[in-house]
Amino acid sequence: MNRRKFVRTASAAATASAVVAAPAIAQSMPEIKWRAASSFPKSLDTLFGGLELFCRRVAELTDGKLKVQPFASGEIVPGLQVLDAVQNGTIELGQTAAYYYIGKDVTYAFDTAVPFGLNTRQHFAWWIHGGGREAMNEFYKEYGVLGIMFGGTGAQMGGWFRKPIQSVEDLRGLKFRIGGFAGQVLAKLGVVPQQIAAADIYPALEKGTIDAAEWVGPYDDEKLGFNKVAPYYYYPGWWEGAATGTMYTNSKSWNTLPPLYQRAVEAACAEVTLWMIGKYDHVNPAALRKLVAGGSKLSAFPVPVLEACMNAANELYAETVAKNAKFAKVYDSWKAYRNEQVLWFRVAEGGFDGFMARQSAQNKL
Amino acid sequence: MNRRKFVRTASAAATASAVVAAPAIAQSMPEIKWRAASSFPKSLDTLFGGLELFCRRVAELTDGKLKVQPFASGEIVPGLQVLDAVQNGTIELGQTAAYYYIGKDVTYAFDTAVPFGLNTRQHFAWWIHGGGREAMNEFYKEYGVLGIMFGGTGAQMGGWFRKPIQSVEDLRGLKFRIGGFAGQVLAKLGVVPQQIAAADIYPALEKGTIDAAEWVGPYDDEKLGFNKVAPYYYYPGWWEGAATGTMYTNSKSWNTLPPLYQRAVEAACAEVTLWMIGKYDHVNPAALRKLVAGGSKLSAFPVPVLEACMNAANELYAETVAKNAKFAKVYDSWKAYRNEQVLWFRVAEGGFDGFMARQSAQNKL
Repeated sequence: MNRRKFVRTASAAATASAVVAAPAIAQSMPEIKWRAASSFPKSLDTLFGGLELFCRRVAELTDGKLKVQPFASGEIVPGLQVLDAVQNGTIELGQTAAYYYIGKDVTYAFDTAVPFGLNTRQHFAWWIHGGGREAMNEFYKEYGVLGIMFGGTGAQMGGWFRKPIQSVEDLRGLKFRIGGFAGQVLAKLGVVPQQIAAADIYPALEKGTIDAAEWVGPYDDEKLGFNKVAPYYYYPGWWEGAATGTMYTNSKSWNTLPPLYQRAVEAACAEVTLWMIGKYDHVNPAALRKLVAGGSKLSAFPVPVLEACMNAANELYAETVAKNAKFAKVYDSWKAYRNEQVLWFRVAEGGFDGFMARQSAQNKL
Repeated sequence: MNRRKFVRTASAAATASAVVAAPAIAQSMPEIKWRAASSFPKSLDTLFGGLELFCRRVAELTDGKLKVQPFASGEIVPGLQVLDAVQNGTIELGQTAAYYYIGKDVTYAFDTAVPFGLNTRQHFAWWIHGGGREAMNEFYKEYGVLGIMFGGTGAQMGGWFRKPIQSVEDLRGLKFRIGGFAGQVLAKLGVVPQQIAAADIYPALEKGTIDAAEWVGPYDDEKLGFNKVAPYYYYPGWWEGAATGTMYTNSKSWNTLPPLYQRAVEAACAEVTLWMIGKYDHVNPAALRKLVAGGSKLSAFPVPVLEACMNAANELYAETVAKNAKFAKVYDSWKAYRNEQVLWFRVAEGGFDGFMARQSAQNKL
């Protein structure tokens, strides 16, 4: 580190002149202003609140020298163009969900969620220790960005339906607002997937232009009011066993940051990850109670429906592996990892959670 | 912040003298050396490895100015006296498990784990958003320490038994190496709880001085070789649905730290929390496979055994609430929080994990 040499030299000068003057701090801790754009609106206080916390922490960790200003979806770029804006250097940081960009390459999806994938804890293990971070950042190199894990929602809900889903047949012809990879899976079962921006979902569902819509979970869903126009609320969102957020940074910008600032950004992302997952778990129980009290009919998807969806997902995986080498490279190790994780989670975690769930169902807690 | 005023004054002086000299950095980022003692030996690379990572990160986040040196169990103080050493100022930081100190007050247990308590995600939510951090640190005030969440093991295993546990009757007279609060619960069912240090468990189990022992989970247990002398490996460790670590700091020492260093310590703790939980999930699957391949008989505790244990735990909670106002204060809100969390986890998380577990059991993944 050059700074050390500088400080030694500067100290010698100070001894000679005995003047305490312009701070050497400026050498190691330059003032830098960055902008971070979010894919999410301010109203989603768990998601956008995570970005605001990030900006505060980065400032605190750099003595106010690295100032990151947060911008909500649409303030600098539309929510779904955050990655592009980071890539082309319009902004230095972007809070988004990697799977918004599967139009570029479906490999992006692994960073957020893929159907019948990892749960939140398993994603942590894969990302931090199982080669996930390395595999995804190898893939990101050609896009000129670096991806850092940034919070998540936990397992999502399966969405709001105007009519009950009692069998695989009920999926046929269903106009379902669901994006990306999961939409392609469901298309194999006759669903007509719809891509609709958040603000337009409610009217479409109300008019019957669509039959169903998925969003996030009780807390975020309730804000959008879907319960008023679609009574059946299904779980689990098998396409998002964990939906993990990503903080992208432009690689060239990143390389200009002093190492202390890089570590500050990474540490703030870790803190936000815990904060956001905890926040969703904190606010979802009361939101779900409110929805159910308001008449929403909460049900699990029937097992045959889930099994048909998993078979369709496996078909799509096989097709994608055959035509996309980058996807195949991540998928093979990822799948083996997932299977080992699920096997382990059947034991201590599943044994504990399962017992507690049964006690709760029997009102014994 | 006084530093800002200082910098302005110093800059004015610099303009006058045009000499770049002694660094103002010394004002805001003084060189500080702290010591952190761990309750764990170096051989437990997930636990002690977390402390080593913490020390590296704190150094990186403070430009090497806050140097924390990690010490394993016994190097400065014995593993179970880490809290006392932080309290009396022998060390500034201590990595430990709060429930080691229930001899002082059982209220300590909430910070780590209590029987039939929260799982890892639920503990995150309670600690960060549900008032857990505030409640525990209010309790810690009289001890002159501050507690920061510091990693964890996830749900632990139920331990190693020389004979199978097929009914509640099999617990009667069982000499079981199990500590603290869980030992008191099991004593109500006729178990004779034993407190034995890690190194002495294996010979006691081999000789039959004890009938059973619990430790952590596959990865840590396998290192201690219990599988060689006790073939029955049970789950879940219902007394540790999440065993969460704590980093204690002496409150007076903490208050002398510049705010940037305080945030660096907190951010490093968050990063280690993700790292450690992920590490356990990463290493446990292979360790469990190895144990089972070596002949260990893996079983869930029978449901009637778990139910009897839960009833005994509830009895103990009621008795403890009646005689300990501090415990009661945390317990009441904690219990309501747990029940809401378990209710929510039955839905999206439980629905997803349960389906994946069944697919795994049917070899369909």
